[in-house]
Amino acid sequence: MKIDGTPYRSIWVDETDGWSVRIIDQTKLPWNVDLVRLTTLEEMAHAIKAMLVRGAPLIGASAAYGVALAMRHDAADAALAQALEVLGATRPTAINLRWALRRMGAALQSVEPAKREAAAYAEAAKICDEDVAVNEAIGRNGLALIEEKAKSGKRVNILTHCNAGWIATVDWGTALAPIYMAHDAGIDVHVWVEETRPRNQGASLTAWELGKHGVKHTVIADNAGGHYMQHGEVDLVIVGTDRVTRQGDVCNKIGTYLKALAAHDNNVPFWVALPSSTIDWTIRDGVAEIPIEERAASEVTTMTGRAMDGSIATVRIVPTSSPAANPAFDVTPARLVTGLITERGLCEATESALTGMFSDLA
Amino acid sequence: MKIDGTPYRSIWVDETDGWSVRIIDQTKLPWNVDLVRLTTLEEMAHAIKAMLVRGAPLIGASAAYGVALAMRHDAADAALAQALEVLGATRPTAINLRWALRRMGAALQSVEPAKREAAAYAEAAKICDEDVAVNEAIGRNGLALIEEKAKSGKRVNILTHCNAGWIATVDWGTALAPIYMAHDAGIDVHVWVEETRPRNQGASLTAWELGKHGVKHTVIADNAGGHYMQHGEVDLVIVGTDRVTRQGDVCNKIGTYLKALAAHDNNVPFWVALPSSTIDWTIRDGVAEIPIEERAASEVTTMTGRAMDGSIATVRIVPTSSPAANPAFDVTPARLVTGLITERGLCEATESALTGMFSDLA
Repeated sequence: MKIDGTPYRSIWVDETDGWSVRIIDQTKLPWNVDLVRLTTLEEMAHAIKAMLVRGAPLIGASAAYGVALAMRHDAADAALAQALEVLGATRPTAINLRWALRRMGAALQSVEPAKREAAAYAEAAKICDEDVAVNEAIGRNGLALIEEKAKSGKRVNILTHCNAGWIATVDWGTALAPIYMAHDAGIDVHVWVEETRPRNQGASLTAWELGKHGVKHTVIADNAGGHYMQHGEVDLVIVGTDRVTRQGDVCNKIGTYLKALAAHDNNVPFWVALPSSTIDWTIRDGVAEIPIEERAASEVTTMTGRAMDGSIATVRIVPTSSPAANPAFDVTPARLVTGLITERGLCEATESALTGMFSDLA
Repeated sequence: MKIDGTPYRSIWVDETDGWSVRIIDQTKLPWNVDLVRLTTLEEMAHAIKAMLVRGAPLIGASAAYGVALAMRHDAADAALAQALEVLGATRPTAINLRWALRRMGAALQSVEPAKREAAAYAEAAKICDEDVAVNEAIGRNGLALIEEKAKSGKRVNILTHCNAGWIATVDWGTALAPIYMAHDAGIDVHVWVEETRPRNQGASLTAWELGKHGVKHTVIADNAGGHYMQHGEVDLVIVGTDRVTRQGDVCNKIGTYLKALAAHDNNVPFWVALPSSTIDWTIRDGVAEIPIEERAASEVTTMTGRAMDGSIATVRIVPTSSPAANPAFDVTPARLVTGLITERGLCEATESALTGMFSDLA
């Protein structure tokens, strides 16, 4: 998508030297757009660990390029094994990271060392292009929903939670892909961006990327979403997801469940956008079976932003003696989900619909 | 209630001089407990306008003492009229402010100027004592609900939103009154305190007052409330309200509606605590008929807290070019409300139950 008129991906090989890897340092957003240049395995491992890059698909792509950087330096078997190990240890729970490293290992192990550098760059590029293609297909399939709403001739208001945008993937994003397509097609679309406490990915990342591409949007407190639905100000909810179960239960950023309830109560369609790789075919009941990560209380008790003097500062917003709890995700039962937007098409959030559309995977 | 073991009200006449008025400067909470001394009408008007005191019942009590301070200085008819006008202009929409000033005017107009100072202090004290008595009755009636839950022998977990505690009233509070009574009675009670974005009254005021009185609590993001209900971690929701309609619709701080939906979806009782003066007998449909105040976008785009160096600082948390919207309240339809906790007893959120219990007011 675009940043102030210029098209970008969230990761790419430097145009000038043809081998170093460029990323946008997402820890600096929305205040600074730092196009960091990475030249070694160690630099890429740090970028993943310190969350300069985040979002499951982008982490996978970054790890792939981390292997390529390592092979440029030393393409021996031991160096390849070492690269896979170092990168695999950066984010212990990221599924896409492990998947991308397995794929890179499989692609390179049978290749002679002299040809590994070129093969690694080619495979990493392929992983990126495939991610873009999947997200583009999600966007195209979701676009139909927005076009349907646009027939009224009025502005289409879409509410989203957290960040499932292009900077969480290589390009397009998942939940935001249909929105970018609608915008680019000239549809009058406006996004209610929930700030998404406690980590504020909505206020800091979704608002930033929509603004930079030129999509109309308004940031609101997470508390306000239900009120706007009650008053007919939301035509559609589209969110991303971290894991979908076999029966269509949706695990996503904490607070998603509350918006699904409000959408259901006000007859607002509630759609979830995802690549099929996000479906966990091994479980059914998301509320009972998905363990919810408990993150640091400091994410609730403090807030980081830009101080009046331009510096980035952190302030405490909870009394020092008060404890805080911080579950990072919740589960929305399938009964509250209107449907899933996948790369193969729109799909009901039911086991029969999912196993029907993805019979080769289920 | 208590601050570190010492009982307080939120407003009182200074023990030493017997005439100046003490308040807790609530703009300094939770970081500093400043017991400000007010000696003139102008100081009290400023305290109300600048929100050193807030919460409808406390604003009314403060205005009453503002009249008393004015009468001490000059008890002539013109000075009385002037005091009522100055105080009436401090917060244009506060119902309790107008009510308290009408009552002070009625009590003083027929009294000869020489006796007005004493009469004004007496009437202000009466307004305070009546508020405490009403809240104590609300607390007693709500306590029964907590005692019922405590019969299981397990800790009783109560979720609340925003601040309807003792510092919003003269003492006890509304939603928190039953909780203080349960705590004082030795019941093992724990409160999930929602931070209540965007103004954070939960994180900064409710957490502070519960902590100072010694009530166990945990601060959570507003997004987390539904998740805890899904997992059986909430036994009861109790919130306050700014206005209840004739049919029992509840207008309260933005985000309350989302918690009512989650409570309903998980069979968690959802109770609203209020003095009967909060009931607006002139309207029925809250969603259609209650205008919702739109507050400054800066409440969403910035956050104030304590910086690492101990100073109070404000940081911006939304990109400069992104607009924000800030509806301050939402309406929870009566169908989602288990019942109302009033000074006369527990009451269903229906027109027949309300007009039955309050036949003298309806």
